[in-house]
Amino acid sequence: MSTPPSLQALINALKVLPGVGPKSAQRMAFHLVQRDPAGAVQLAQAIIDAQGRLQHCRLCNTFAETDVCEICQDEQRNHSQLCVVEMPTDLWAIEATRAFEGRYFVLMGRLSPLDGVGVNDIALRPLISRALDGEIEEVILATNFTTEGEATAYYLSELLRARGLKVSRIARGLPVGGELEHADPATLAQAVIERRDKP
Amino acid sequence: MSTPPSLQALINALKVLPGVGPKSAQRMAFHLVQRDPAGAVQLAQAIIDAQGRLQHCRLCNTFAETDVCEICQDEQRNHSQLCVVEMPTDLWAIEATRAFEGRYFVLMGRLSPLDGVGVNDIALRPLISRALDGEIEEVILATNFTTEGEATAYYLSELLRARGLKVSRIARGLPVGGELEHADPATLAQAVIERRDKP
Ligand SMILES: [Zn+2]
Ligand SMILES: [Zn+2]
Repeated sequence: MSTPPSLQALINALKVLPGVGPKSAQRMAFHLVQRDPAGAVQLAQAIIDAQGRLQHCRLCNTFAETDVCEICQDEQRNHSQLCVVEMPTDLWAIEATRAFEGRYFVLMGRLSPLDGVGVNDIALRPLISRALDGEIEEVILATNFTTEGEATAYYLSELLRARGLKVSRIARGLPVGGELEHADPATLAQAVIERRDKP
Repeated sequence: MSTPPSLQALINALKVLPGVGPKSAQRMAFHLVQRDPAGAVQLAQAIIDAQGRLQHCRLCNTFAETDVCEICQDEQRNHSQLCVVEMPTDLWAIEATRAFEGRYFVLMGRLSPLDGVGVNDIALRPLISRALDGEIEEVILATNFTTEGEATAYYLSELLRARGLKVSRIARGLPVGGELEHADPATLAQAVIERRDKP
């Protein structure tokens, strides 16, 4: 007695999802087949729809259902600032703050040699041609403050400065409302090192 | 700027999977769209296939692609013993041991009042009519040794004994090769309580 083929195929297919091992793939398959057939149909349909509709914005590389995304279409935004982020989620997080009125560029990843993600695996060439459009004056690097995000920022900064662009990095430090005694030592150290003149 | 509708729909659809929250649904959606379009197509197809092909075996209630599963079709198996398990995985685990030659019945769940799983949510009626087919002499309860599995076994045992069937429970105790000093106290206590005469 073995697992019916179509059930085994479903379990295998679920294992392509990040963070899903054999045990959770099995649990998910049972759930879809046994408990939530309607959700299963919806999931299959959503995958097919997303595949068919999503593309990358020709200008900023984020996910969009149109050739150029809403932000890049918005003529009211500042054309001289370009904020570079790793993923669309980062773009959405910055947009939610309403603190930035320029344009974005989404790398769709970060340099991560250990995971085999090199300079050809993220959108470096499109970024460079985007940054050299003649309107951009400042590129703001908003990659994460992880080892990989920092390495990516360093690499981009060298690359873009060599082409005459002004490059900045978003600030690191204590969170707003943060208390010194609860900050982790590395963040606190950076907050001291990156101190600014009190206006 | 918001998430494109088809991407948001995919994220929402992934949230129906057990153990998948908003963050992992997003990570999964990005992975499918960005990194593994072939895997995404395969997943959608596997869901549709499984939905279309899988049914419950008319006799034992396990997943099967046929009206009656391979085990129930096998005339060589012992017709007088019926082993009751919670899920198809439990059936497969017992089959892999080759220690049981009878038939099975799969409840597709366990009694779990706290999760709203009552006597009408698992396959009790089909079990009773299966157990009363006239050939079954012994019902072996192989639900898990969890609180819920134990409660289910207790309930089934009352129900089946009242109908004149012999009911047994799989044994609890130290694992084969297990060392006393590494056993958890509850298991060790049960091993002492459920001791058997040395043959
Ligand atoms: Zn765009
Ligand atoms: Zn069967």
